[in-house]
Amino acid sequence: MSYRAPVKDMLFDMQHLAGLQTLTEQIPAFADYGVDTAQAVLEECAKLNEDVVAPTNVEGDKNPSYWKDGNVFTSKGFKEAFRQFAEGGWQGLQHPAEYGGQALPKTIGAACGEMVNSANLSFALCPLLTDGAIEALLTAGSDEQKSTYIPHLIDGSWTGTMNLTEPQAGSDLAAVRTRAEPQADGTYKIFGTKIFITYGEHDMAENIVHLVLARVVGAPEGVKGISLFIVPKFMVNADGSLGARNDAHCVSIEHKMGIKASPTAVLQFGDHGGAVGYLVGQENRGLEYMFVMMNAARFGVGVQGIAVAERSYQHAVAYARDRVQSRPVDGSKPGAATIIHHPDVRRMLMTMRSLTEGSRAMSIVAAAAYDAAHHHEDAETRKQNQAFYEFMVPLVKGYSTEMSLEVTDLGVQVHGGMGFIEETGAAQYYRDAKILTIYEGTTAIQANDLVGRKTTRDGGTLAKAVAAQVEKTEGELAARSSAASQSVAKRLKAAREAYLQSVDFIAAQGKANPNAAYSGSVPYLMLAGNLVAGWQLARSLIVAEDMLGEDAEFMAAKIATARFYAEHILPRCGALRNAIVEGADSVTAMALDSF
Amino acid sequence: MSYRAPVKDMLFDMQHLAGLQTLTEQIPAFADYGVDTAQAVLEECAKLNEDVVAPTNVEGDKNPSYWKDGNVFTSKGFKEAFRQFAEGGWQGLQHPAEYGGQALPKTIGAACGEMVNSANLSFALCPLLTDGAIEALLTAGSDEQKSTYIPHLIDGSWTGTMNLTEPQAGSDLAAVRTRAEPQADGTYKIFGTKIFITYGEHDMAENIVHLVLARVVGAPEGVKGISLFIVPKFMVNADGSLGARNDAHCVSIEHKMGIKASPTAVLQFGDHGGAVGYLVGQENRGLEYMFVMMNAARFGVGVQGIAVAERSYQHAVAYARDRVQSRPVDGSKPGAATIIHHPDVRRMLMTMRSLTEGSRAMSIVAAAAYDAAHHHEDAETRKQNQAFYEFMVPLVKGYSTEMSLEVTDLGVQVHGGMGFIEETGAAQYYRDAKILTIYEGTTAIQANDLVGRKTTRDGGTLAKAVAAQVEKTEGELAARSSAASQSVAKRLKAAREAYLQSVDFIAAQGKANPNAAYSGSVPYLMLAGNLVAGWQLARSLIVAEDMLGEDAEFMAAKIATARFYAEHILPRCGALRNAIVEGADSVTAMALDSF
Repeated sequence: MSYRAPVKDMLFDMQHLAGLQTLTEQIPAFADYGVDTAQAVLEECAKLNEDVVAPTNVEGDKNPSYWKDGNVFTSKGFKEAFRQFAEGGWQGLQHPAEYGGQALPKTIGAACGEMVNSANLSFALCPLLTDGAIEALLTAGSDEQKSTYIPHLIDGSWTGTMNLTEPQAGSDLAAVRTRAEPQADGTYKIFGTKIFITYGEHDMAENIVHLVLARVVGAPEGVKGISLFIVPKFMVNADGSLGARNDAHCVSIEHKMGIKASPTAVLQFGDHGGAVGYLVGQENRGLEYMFVMMNAARFGVGVQGIAVAERSYQHAVAYARDRVQSRPVDGSKPGAATIIHHPDVRRMLMTMRSLTEGSRAMSIVAAAAYDAAHHHEDAETRKQNQAFYEFMVPLVKGYSTEMSLEVTDLGVQVHGGMGFIEETGAAQYYRDAKILTIYEGTTAIQANDLVGRKTTRDGGTLAKAVAAQVEKTEGELAARSSAASQSVAKRLKAAREAYLQSVDFIAAQGKANPNAAYSGSVPYLMLAGNLVAGWQLARSLIVAEDMLGEDAEFMAAKIATARFYAEHILPRCGALRNAIVEGADSVTAMALDSF
Repeated sequence: MSYRAPVKDMLFDMQHLAGLQTLTEQIPAFADYGVDTAQAVLEECAKLNEDVVAPTNVEGDKNPSYWKDGNVFTSKGFKEAFRQFAEGGWQGLQHPAEYGGQALPKTIGAACGEMVNSANLSFALCPLLTDGAIEALLTAGSDEQKSTYIPHLIDGSWTGTMNLTEPQAGSDLAAVRTRAEPQADGTYKIFGTKIFITYGEHDMAENIVHLVLARVVGAPEGVKGISLFIVPKFMVNADGSLGARNDAHCVSIEHKMGIKASPTAVLQFGDHGGAVGYLVGQENRGLEYMFVMMNAARFGVGVQGIAVAERSYQHAVAYARDRVQSRPVDGSKPGAATIIHHPDVRRMLMTMRSLTEGSRAMSIVAAAAYDAAHHHEDAETRKQNQAFYEFMVPLVKGYSTEMSLEVTDLGVQVHGGMGFIEETGAAQYYRDAKILTIYEGTTAIQANDLVGRKTTRDGGTLAKAVAAQVEKTEGELAARSSAASQSVAKRLKAAREAYLQSVDFIAAQGKANPNAAYSGSVPYLMLAGNLVAGWQLARSLIVAEDMLGEDAEFMAAKIATARFYAEHILPRCGALRNAIVEGADSVTAMALDSF
């Protein structure tokens, strides 16, 4: 099944929801990145991903990467695709020009990220992790570290990894045990085992830059004693050439349900005398730096959810247009028709489409806030955008990935029995998507972040500020005459009220009764994500109604999608509110022994 | 991961929700099958499935059945497990004593069916299909056909299959093309290709009795021209011994996402001169007979959903009790605790548990209605029970299987990253479960049945009669003083009202505007299933409160589970109602070309 990048939808979101034009006008660094540039970039990106990356997806699933004698061999076509990806400059898209990057806004970068992930989720993980490593080095690396590593990471000759997890330390990084012993020359020797290391070993680049969390001997217990180290696979000589093999080895890779082509490595550090590590920033501040990397990666994983949902949707639409089965219930065809004529198939496709478009709009709007937060000249604007972006990260990550499970399930369902047969391809999305609600922080970890740092800490102030923006959109909708805008206004209001009641409950319980607040944490995340995605689609409806004369078919589809979301997806907010506000006690009521 | 059959829960449902004692008192044939007998049967069944069948589950996934030269070889351990299953008399559990069966009520049989499916979904499919074949022969077979085939099907020396699907005929059986040519001796020659034939070929039995839908030459078009034939793999001689190989051959089996051990065959009939087929019943009434088989199988597939959910739940609980990670948010432990102490893990486990228990209660109550419908002496009682049972079949099939997707997803999620690693075992349930919403009629097909035959045909009368029963339970709850019963009464009322509004909408639109009615068909099925399962748990709460003094821990868990369901799952009914009643138009509003 071929992939067609939704360039027009992406541009619509950037232009009409995320205010790309305003960004380029207000931020000198982005002066050149208006809509025309964005379109050119997206079309070029679409070409590579449609023609080169997408065709590797099924092959990678059928013949995954494999381990042999410490080496990992990626699936057929991956090396060549990665070479073209790197040569096209796509790894450096959002990174500083001084290290060879293109310094494009994240607003555009997020859309490009979606494309490579739609094309091949397993393949795209390698650049995604490398992006994270670059961000961490930019934040906390020394000038020498930056100039040594970043140019190679950007040009694709090297790639990056994040080494956090250990067998006993998953969500709980306080339990990290990997040991760093300071050496006389200022380096460290690293000893320990890291698991679940994505692209921890592979054959697509000359070197791999492992960023590793470890505990310096004598450091405090818990998260306050964790430091961040660079541990390159091959040592780097003073002239920049590659030197000796470091003592960091891949001892196995995992056998997974999905994203099979992406090697998930167990890395052993220091089994042969100690791996050489270089401290990044200061000792014991590793977690702080790693959060930079993780936040970038969390946003990126949210985009993966949108990406796999889009691919699954396209696959399902193609099948529904082709498969003939049964007469339509309304008698609109004399005999059997393609199944896209059946109401329930339409309901499934509209659910898939509206969830995907809503999440995409949310992510692109969040990306624009990131750009303003990092590059706007006005400090207050930066601060406000940073707060909004930080509120959005758990929603983009948590909501977009959870919705991708629903979408890929429906994607199989549309295919009927054929969906369960691996050769059809729909099942791969269902298997691949399931990792997205887990890695880079499970949905519960995102929800903890939303409840703790983003809601209870400020007593719900920021959460309510988001609701106030939603209310403004409701007002705009209510002032319009169309049935669609009236319908959406009504549902958006009900959803916002459900959200506000939940915010109040969580802000009030947060400290006094944490079990009550956290019992509803994931429902609260789902409610907030549902509302924000629906809000963005509501905004798109306003734009589309105004532009109906210019591009009738496209805008009519935007209106239909927004209305469907409001009438079918937004009502879930009420059910979630009930669970959060009225159901907290019943979550922890049953005795532990009774499970 | 070992499996422990929930015998006590099953007995509770039979005794206190399904009225097993009343059945035994009112139906002479069941006089011996009281609670003590049920317990003895369940314990024996548990033993076989825990000790013999369950250990084959992982092996079957890792080393699936395979095809070679027309033969299919099942996974290691399957033949021996099937031999013990057959020798124990489990295939004949619900079938007439005159053919070697045990003639037990379905009320007990459904619970036994859950166990074998929890133990190994792939394995259990073979007996499930054989049950269907037996039912069809009992309904429409001649005396000679019954005595020739049924005893062998019951003793496990032969097995049965259902041959409906063809490449162009899936949900739409009107499109069946397999051809039957009448012969001078009263037999037929069968020509055609059938796909998706579960256990269409295997090595666990001496013979396979294919029941095949085909069109007699000259028969009317559409479903009114379909006849049912017996096509044995080996011909049966007059003395009952096996004769020549029939011209029905397995040319390949499918490569599937889950239930990999269950061979899904492509069967070719008549490539070497014609397969010998024996007409069952009358010509052109095949679909009617097959519906008997399908209804039995649909109920059975619903039970499969409950079964895989139960297994996934047990797996997740075991992990949550074992895995240590992070300090509890309420500070109840000084350091890191097992993850079952974290509210969101509890929320996931309670969701899994309550969905599973609610669906199980629904299925056992439905089974009791089947028993009364088939065996009660009073005609009016039979009629009422038959109507109730027929209303329940799409709910048991549709709701229990859809909920199993949610449960098995949460089962993976509780495991975090380990859940995505195949060796952990949680992923298999997620992959296996996905077929359940598809085969024996997709969820949409169940929903069409619920909307068409079960709701609009009688103007919603039966659907409302179910609501009246729910209302009675509300009254009983409201009269009680406990906070739990008050809470459940309130949510049950809201859910019932949402249901009634949906029934009214669908009954009103059904004929006038079928697109509107069918646009909400699956949400209506989910609403009805959600309500009925919640209603049964509400009934269990009443019993449990009254019996709290007798068995405190068990009954307290029943109360907690019922309350959780009411507060977290029942509120979804409101969201579904909105989608059904207010969102019908937006399902089909978007132009076909815009997808």
